[in-house]
This record gives sequence, C-alpha cells and structure tokens, in this order.
Amino acid sequence: MRTYIHEIDKYIDHEVTLKGWLVNKRSSGKIIFLEIRDGSGFIQAIITQDGVSKQIWELANTLTQESSLIITGIVSQHPKKPSVFELQVSTIQIINIAQEYPISKKEHGPDFLLNERHLWLRSKRQWAILKVRDVVETAIHQYLHEQFFVRTDSPILTPNACEGTTTLFPVPYFNLGEVYLAQTGQLYIEAAIGSVGRCYDFGPVFRAEKSTTKRHLTEFWMMDAEAAFVEHEENMQIQEELVKAIAKQCLKKCQEEFAILERDTTPLEKMLTQSFRRVTYEEAIPLLHSLGSDIKFGEDLGNDDERLLTKESEVPVFIHKWPKTIKPFYMKRDPENTDLVLNNDLIGIEGAGEIVGGSQREDDYEILLGRIREEGLPEKDYAWYLDLRKYGSVAHSGFGIGVERMVRWMSGTEHIRECIPFPRLVNRMRP
Amino acid sequence: MRTYIHEIDKYIDHEVTLKGWLVNKRSSGKIIFLEIRDGSGFIQAIITQDGVSKQIWELANTLTQESSLIITGIVSQHPKKPSVFELQVSTIQIINIAQEYPISKKEHGPDFLLNERHLWLRSKRQWAILKVRDVVETAIHQYLHEQFFVRTDSPILTPNACEGTTTLFPVPYFNLGEVYLAQTGQLYIEAAIGSVGRCYDFGPVFRAEKSTTKRHLTEFWMMDAEAAFVEHEENMQIQEELVKAIAKQCLKKCQEEFAILERDTTPLEKMLTQSFRRVTYEEAIPLLHSLGSDIKFGEDLGNDDERLLTKESEVPVFIHKWPKTIKPFYMKRDPENTDLVLNNDLIGIEGAGEIVGGSQREDDYEILLGRIREEGLPEKDYAWYLDLRKYGSVAHSGFGIGVERMVRWMSGTEHIRECIPFPRLVNRMRP
Repeated sequence: MRTYIHEIDKYIDHEVTLKGWLVNKRSSGKIIFLEIRDGSGFIQAIITQDGVSKQIWELANTLTQESSLIITGIVSQHPKKPSVFELQVSTIQIINIAQEYPISKKEHGPDFLLNERHLWLRSKRQWAILKVRDVVETAIHQYLHEQFFVRTDSPILTPNACEGTTTLFPVPYFNLGEVYLAQTGQLYIEAAIGSVGRCYDFGPVFRAEKSTTKRHLTEFWMMDAEAAFVEHEENMQIQEELVKAIAKQCLKKCQEEFAILERDTTPLEKMLTQSFRRVTYEEAIPLLHSLGSDIKFGEDLGNDDERLLTKESEVPVFIHKWPKTIKPFYMKRDPENTDLVLNNDLIGIEGAGEIVGGSQREDDYEILLGRIREEGLPEKDYAWYLDLRKYGSVAHSGFGIGVERMVRWMSGTEHIRECIPFPRLVNRMRP
Repeated sequence: MRTYIHEIDKYIDHEVTLKGWLVNKRSSGKIIFLEIRDGSGFIQAIITQDGVSKQIWELANTLTQESSLIITGIVSQHPKKPSVFELQVSTIQIINIAQEYPISKKEHGPDFLLNERHLWLRSKRQWAILKVRDVVETAIHQYLHEQFFVRTDSPILTPNACEGTTTLFPVPYFNLGEVYLAQTGQLYIEAAIGSVGRCYDFGPVFRAEKSTTKRHLTEFWMMDAEAAFVEHEENMQIQEELVKAIAKQCLKKCQEEFAILERDTTPLEKMLTQSFRRVTYEEAIPLLHSLGSDIKFGEDLGNDDERLLTKESEVPVFIHKWPKTIKPFYMKRDPENTDLVLNNDLIGIEGAGEIVGGSQREDDYEILLGRIREEGLPEKDYAWYLDLRKYGSVAHSGFGIGVERMVRWMSGTEHIRECIPFPRLVNRMRP
C-alpha cells in the first residue's frame, strides 16, 4: 500500500511506503538525509548506516537529484516542530537514477528556466504556485455553483472581434474564411442567461499583444460570469463575495504552499473582515491628482494610478462608472449621467492591479444598435447579439476574472509567467 | 426578495416573486395559464380574472412568448402530483414584450436551429442538456480532486503535432512561425506529474477534420488525466470509477432534466452496480467475427464494431492491449507481447461509442527515442518530452475523456452538436 506525504500525519509510528523523487541529499558521516517529494508534499527521510543493510546504504549513496524511488520506513514526528514529520528509512528501491539535472541550486536566468519549464515545474516554488492555481480555480467553480451559476462553455473559435481587431489571432477555417481566437466569452454567455438565468464560462482566451510586462500573457485563462436580473450594485457585490471566497479557500488549503512562497497572509486575512471600497471614476480623478498623478478626466487608469489608489488600502477598490468614451459598446449607460457607463474595475491590494472587470450590459435594442453603429462595428456580425434585446430583454450584468492575475496576487508571485503551467509570451511558445 | 423556481418547494402557501420569461400561454375563458421559466426551472402560473385587477388581467393578455416579466403570487402544491408546484398569481410586471419569436412549436430543421442557437438554447431540451453538461463537468473535477489529482491547465497554442499533422489548425505566431491549436494536453501533463504527482487538464481541443458525423465537432472539450506510479490495470480502474462517479452525479442532480429529455435512467442505474467488462483486442477480434464483423486483426474498430461489442452489454467495455502499429508512439509496449501496447479504449453502453481512451506511457528513454525515430517525428520538438525519461522516469498512465461525448451519452442526445453551447462544425462557426 502506497501512502501519500500529505496524509502522513495519520501514520505516526507506523511503517509506510512512499513513491516519489529525490529533491536533495545531504550526508553526515553515518547518516544520509534525503528530501523526498511525491507530488502531494515534501518529507525528510533519514537513513542511518546502522539501520539498513550494507546494500541499501550503498544504493542510497548512488542517488542523484531527481532520481525516482520507492522508500519504506517508520513515520516520526519532529521532536520540536509537531507539524513536521520524518521518515526513519528501513529500505529503498531505486526506480530510475536521474542524469545530471540541469536545474541546480544556483540562480538561473528566466530564459533558461522557461526553456526548462517542463522540469522547472518540479521546483518547490513552482509546485506551490501550481497548487495555489488549482485552489483558485476550484474556489471559483465552487462559489459560482453555490450562487446558482451554471457553467456554459463559450466557443474559442469566433467570428466576432469583441475587444478590437488589432490584438486578435486569426485562424483559417475550412471554406468559411478566417475566424479568431476568443478574447472573452461574454457575448455568448449573455445569450445563455436566457436559458439558465445565471452562468459562467471558464477557458483560455488569447491576446496577440506585443506587451512584455509582468502582467501579460498571449494565452491566459478567464472566467466570465453573467446573470439575468442583476444590476450594477449587485454585480459589484457578487464580485466582492467571489474574490473573498477565493482568498478564503486559499487561506484554508494553501498554508504549506504559502510557507514555501514566503507569502505573508496577513493582508488577505485583514481583507476578509472588511467591505471593499467603492470609488466612482469621477471621485477617483481628483483623488489621484491629490496623490500626485497627472491623469486627465477621460483617460484610462495606468498601472501607477492603480497603485496609488490602493497603496494605503487594506481592501480592493472598485473604480466604477467610467466615461463611456473609453469603454466598449455593450456597457449600459448610467441613467443619472449618460456620459458614464455602469461598469467597474476592481483593483486588488498588494500591487495586484486590475483583477476583475465588470459591467451592467445595455439591454435596450435601439440604444445598443446605436452604439454598434457609432463604433462602426459590422452590424451583421452582431445581429444575433441584438436578438437578445428583441426577445424578452432583461437587466443583466457580468464580469470577468483573469485567472493568472488572481493566482499571481494570491500566491504573491512577481511575474505572471510563473502563474500558468506553460506560459505563452510574445517571444515564447515552447516547450 | 426574489425566489428561484428550483427552491419553490420551500414556499408552499407563501407569496413569492419570480423573475423570468414566458414559455407558453393558454387561455381558457376566465383563466390564463402561463408557463414561466427563470433559468433554475419551470413553473405554471395561474391568473384568474376574478383574482387580479382589470389592469393586470389585460396586461397578462398582451404577453407574448419569451416576454420577460416579474410575477408575484402564492405557491400551491399540485393536488395530484406533490412534486409539481403552481403559482396563484396576484400581480405581474412586464419587463419586455418579446417580438414575434422565430422558434415556434412546429418542427424546425437543424440548420435553422443552429443559426438561431443563441435563442434555441432557451428551449426545454437545450436547457436540460446545458444543465447535464454542467453536472458532468463538475463531477469530473470533483472526482479527480477526491483522488488527489491537481488541475494543471495545458497550453492551447503548441508547436507539437501530437496526434498527426493532417487535422491541425495552424495559427501564425508573431515572429516564431506557425503554432497549432492543441489536440490534447497529454504530453504537458506528463511533465506536470513530476511536480504534482497526479494531475489533469480540462480545456478546448481542436480537430480540423472534415467529418460530419453525429459524434464529431471541430472544437470540443477534453479532460486529460495523468498519474505517476499508475500502471495499466489501475489506469482502467480509475477510468471506471470516474465514469461511474459522473453517472452517479447525473442521476442525483438531473432528475428533472432527464424527465424533460425522456431519458430512461435504468441502464445507468444498472451499470453502477456492476464491474465494467475487460476484453483484450486479441479477444475482441474473434468475438467480433462471431458477431458478424469482417474486421481484420490489426485494424481499428469501426463504429459498427463498437456497437456489436456493447449491444447486449449492461456495462461499458474496455478494449485493451491493441497492436502497437495502429497506436501512437508514446504508448508503452506490453512486456508480455511487444507487438501490443498497454492501452485501452472504453466503449460506453446505449450506443455511446468510445468515451475514454487511455494508456500506460513509455517510460524508457531509449525505447521512446526509438519509437519517435521509427515514426519519423521531429526529434528536436520532442526533446523536452524525452527529458522526462532522463530525470527520474517513473511508470505512469493517463487517459482522456471527450466531454461532449460523455454529455451526449448521459443526456441521451442523438447529435453531439446539441451537447456544446455553441457548436463549431466543418460548415459552421456562427453565431
């Protein structure tokens, strides 16, 4: 019977067999310390020359970093740290002696590590980020299901150029001309709410953008949620609850990962007990001026502005009701000021930047048609989208979360390229 | 306060307010019967001329199919069917009177319905299939997490042509030449097991195949799972348990949906109490001959063969250990007969066809390199994949499930194009 390291605390003083890889080996005279990982966790295994046969002792000495092995021994609790366990080894069986491993303990440049991404994933930090990513993703599904959202996958191949054509990847499609890789599934889930009421998609999206910042990938994962009969205020409320649900699950399930990542969790804990701030765009501009920004009314917020607005804040900040001139055609105009739209960005704390973007959608057929014409969009391509306003149109709102940005924030990782298993960047599509 | 139809049983004899759409209207003198849906379910609302104001009575008469409305009334239990509830309406508020709805009760052709997919999704059958799809997807995530699999998303843009180049969609990628849309994430999750031990991906895959059968889409969703230290037999065991877990969740959560779909659930219930059959390819061929097939040893099974093998069966059938000549390079050779590989297809019952495909992977560096050369594959492109056999190679196995095929089976739908919200076919990429 094989035991996993993450359940080892159930087997104190019992013999267990682990299957895994050698992370590190230290020798000290008649003792060899092996650090073992099995995917579920890490443990120190101790071999004493007196405690094993001569053959096992010699085998242990041949082990190289990353060798795979089966190892049997008695579980003991660390005398001073009760949450740490060790294995007193009785026998080992080598599966594969690894060749000299290219990733050593010395510093490697990012290009080297990205070339070796298939191996780099095995490092403790990368393991921890993969685990946080899984918890973030699972928390999103769980929260949305609890709130009666139905998962409805949006298509990836799409004729619609929703967020502008300059950053699209075109794909030749049989005899039908070119299609594009989706940048969001929003328009599609707006259709699906007519069926299931509340829904979300969760899939890869693509931006053919030549950005090389720490926050950009050409292929990344996105969750779009949409709900019928939800208006601007409630839309922000759902976003706030979802972000809190994600943070809560990470705090609950990722303590070991956070320790590896040296991520101080105090800011997340503090955030959970408070309401997020809400600042209108109109309020934000003078506030930014007072903080030293030279942003002009009608401009998009830059990274520096986002940082200024959240620098002293213990909670994420909603910047809502932006000028319609800098926002897409589908956002609903604010009835109190038709130069503004009922949208929001949500700026995370700790330098996370924009983590959610949402809006109430225009539900009036004539206004939406007018906006499509004003923007010079191909009316024919949006005929089906306009249909949704002809047959039982309802107030509805939605939002999108960039999965990697959320993982970056939760895990406290500097560069987004470490927040996806195999990053695709302007200059990288391998391995 | 808004109430959802799916929780209406908690409000018997209480007043509730529903928000939704009109599915159907019947009048009978002084009574109007409205069938309402809100995304969470369907309910009949009853308006009596004596029970409402004159204004409301007139409003109700103006309602067209698909109009959106807010409706308030008292919940009552159907006198003869205790699981059916009705709403005795006190007031309604119209949100939007729908224009004449293009999808009527008469039969429409598939092309018409696919053109109107954004509206067709609202039909009862399509609603039910969307719901089953969500339950299937959620069941996959849940089961795999329970079994310690970590979700690790595979890239969509990939330089590797894993399953052959003829059915790939190429995408121009900046200055790096062409990449392809992924057909599977398998190779990538084989890398990730070195980090997390057991993992899975869940995302869209693409086949530029000119097939127009009832089982083919050009864009579909796939789950690939991979586990270190798992061999052929255990691999099949995991597949069997996962398929049973999916069926179990559907039976638990989709009773209303199955009723709408007129899906007899007896075969699924029977399946859950039995072990799946296991037949080797070598056993399958004479068996097929005895059943009338003219398949030759060394040929792939056709749809008819799959049907013959499962026709009388109450359980899905594993066909395992196929000739290596008709299988991909990465499958591990059977040590007992090196002309065969340690793989399996899993053929579902009720005409579901192949629903899972899995194999133990070749973990020996030299043999794998030999296979890559035999197949004439570009060695350089697979250097990273070969690396996985250099540094702590372990026995490992995995499998893939086509999500839409599973939804098709579970929901009892004939055509796979109804099992994805917005199908992409050889001749279709809209809406």
